[in-house]
Amino acid sequence: MKELVFVGLGLNDDKGISVKGLEETKTADTVFMENYTSRMPDFSLQRFEKLCNRKVQLVGRRELEEESGNQILQAAKNGKTVFLVPGDPFIATTHVTLRIDAEKQGVSTRIVHGASIISAIISLSGLHNYKFGKTVTVPFPENFSETPYNVISQNKTYGLHTLCLLDLKATENEFLSINQALKMLLEIEEKNKKGIVTADTVALGVARAGSDNPTLKANFVKNLLNSDFGPPPYSLIVPGDLHFMEVDALIAFAEAPLEFRRLSK
Amino acid sequence: MKELVFVGLGLNDDKGISVKGLEETKTADTVFMENYTSRMPDFSLQRFEKLCNRKVQLVGRRELEEESGNQILQAAKNGKTVFLVPGDPFIATTHVTLRIDAEKQGVSTRIVHGASIISAIISLSGLHNYKFGKTVTVPFPENFSETPYNVISQNKTYGLHTLCLLDLKATENEFLSINQALKMLLEIEEKNKKGIVTADTVALGVARAGSDNPTLKANFVKNLLNSDFGPPPYSLIVPGDLHFMEVDALIAFAEAPLEFRRLSK
Repeated sequence: MKELVFVGLGLNDDKGISVKGLEETKTADTVFMENYTSRMPDFSLQRFEKLCNRKVQLVGRRELEEESGNQILQAAKNGKTVFLVPGDPFIATTHVTLRIDAEKQGVSTRIVHGASIISAIISLSGLHNYKFGKTVTVPFPENFSETPYNVISQNKTYGLHTLCLLDLKATENEFLSINQALKMLLEIEEKNKKGIVTADTVALGVARAGSDNPTLKANFVKNLLNSDFGPPPYSLIVPGDLHFMEVDALIAFAEAPLEFRRLSK
Repeated sequence: MKELVFVGLGLNDDKGISVKGLEETKTADTVFMENYTSRMPDFSLQRFEKLCNRKVQLVGRRELEEESGNQILQAAKNGKTVFLVPGDPFIATTHVTLRIDAEKQGVSTRIVHGASIISAIISLSGLHNYKFGKTVTVPFPENFSETPYNVISQNKTYGLHTLCLLDLKATENEFLSINQALKMLLEIEEKNKKGIVTADTVALGVARAGSDNPTLKANFVKNLLNSDFGPPPYSLIVPGDLHFMEVDALIAFAEAPLEFRRLSK
């Protein structure tokens, strides 16, 4: 069977993959994996190779964008090829091009989905999924941008929550911290003075979503600035209007102070 | 071990669950499952019980909201209890209450995530995740509402895409079709005349996201009105501004006509 199957690895470790995804991998002629679009803290390639009984070839960003795409397409023209991707395969957009190229060259493609970091964070928070607006990534300070602030502002206009993914360099093991992200937002506030992210704004920091011991802390920004969230990866939610059930969830799951009760609308 | 573990079943069939989720289920003293918040077309309870080597007790909406919540909490106070939920456990908000009650009563809870229908649809479409605005559900005609139209309008103001989940009654096997949803949106357009969803608006219908044979069709609304998408479940995306790479994806994966090329911004 000549085809290219994109398989989501899900979250955290080598057992985040679906039972179906594992079966597809076990029956592949060639298996590739990329590990640069996000970070799976407890993933062990050695354990995973044992689990799927296959040799897994790692591909990096440069290889994939420059040449390895071809290497993967070549393999797919010769037999069943599985390409393993952390999370859900196309939530990161970098692999869409490979899939388009494959289809254009007559290689049929399929997707086996995995748990994505985005729905995991929303799911963990207890906030209502249909109340989230646009998602945004907060970059490292050297790539400073006002976009995250503007997206939060835009979402708040309609009472919507904003999920902020915090930038990371997975291969260098570098992660933007929740504290850094909040400081950056406060700096922009200082300049714009729109009252979007102030010391008294409610925020929710999330560390290690998808692992067995995620940390969630909801509080006013001033109280989160020096909070310790433990090891990465990190993300941040800046809520819009809160329903009382959402406040109850933040109190129960995210150590929110009881005074949050007066915030609900 | 006394605890309540919420395990996502992922998508489509009994192998959508993660390897970790399956292990948790295998080691549970009691296993419950709900099957009313969404539809897994190829799921077989019999096959799943064989796979996890456990008896699985089904709970319906009424039981869960009225009494079965208690039944599950009782079990969790006596031993390790797994509650299986289609997709990712809390993307449907109905189970948050059960988790809050558990924590309040001193029962510790954990989540093992699964692939969610929301990220699966976005992933399949090839559209950019960070360009989606608020998600909305289109109700059955008897619950007619202008909200979906208004959410699409609001998202389009910022050039954002709208994911429309189409309502379903999973236990009665009833599904709002893509054609019905589009007709409802056109009726509201007829009245409001804001040019948000017209015969010439671009839309993308998706059937059976997460299965081995999803159907995706991107076209102008007038050409989708009588399209056959095959068996359910269904969803609909009304795109905002399209990047040329997104147009390429719609042409490659969703049968979009080549004239879509002139739409990209």
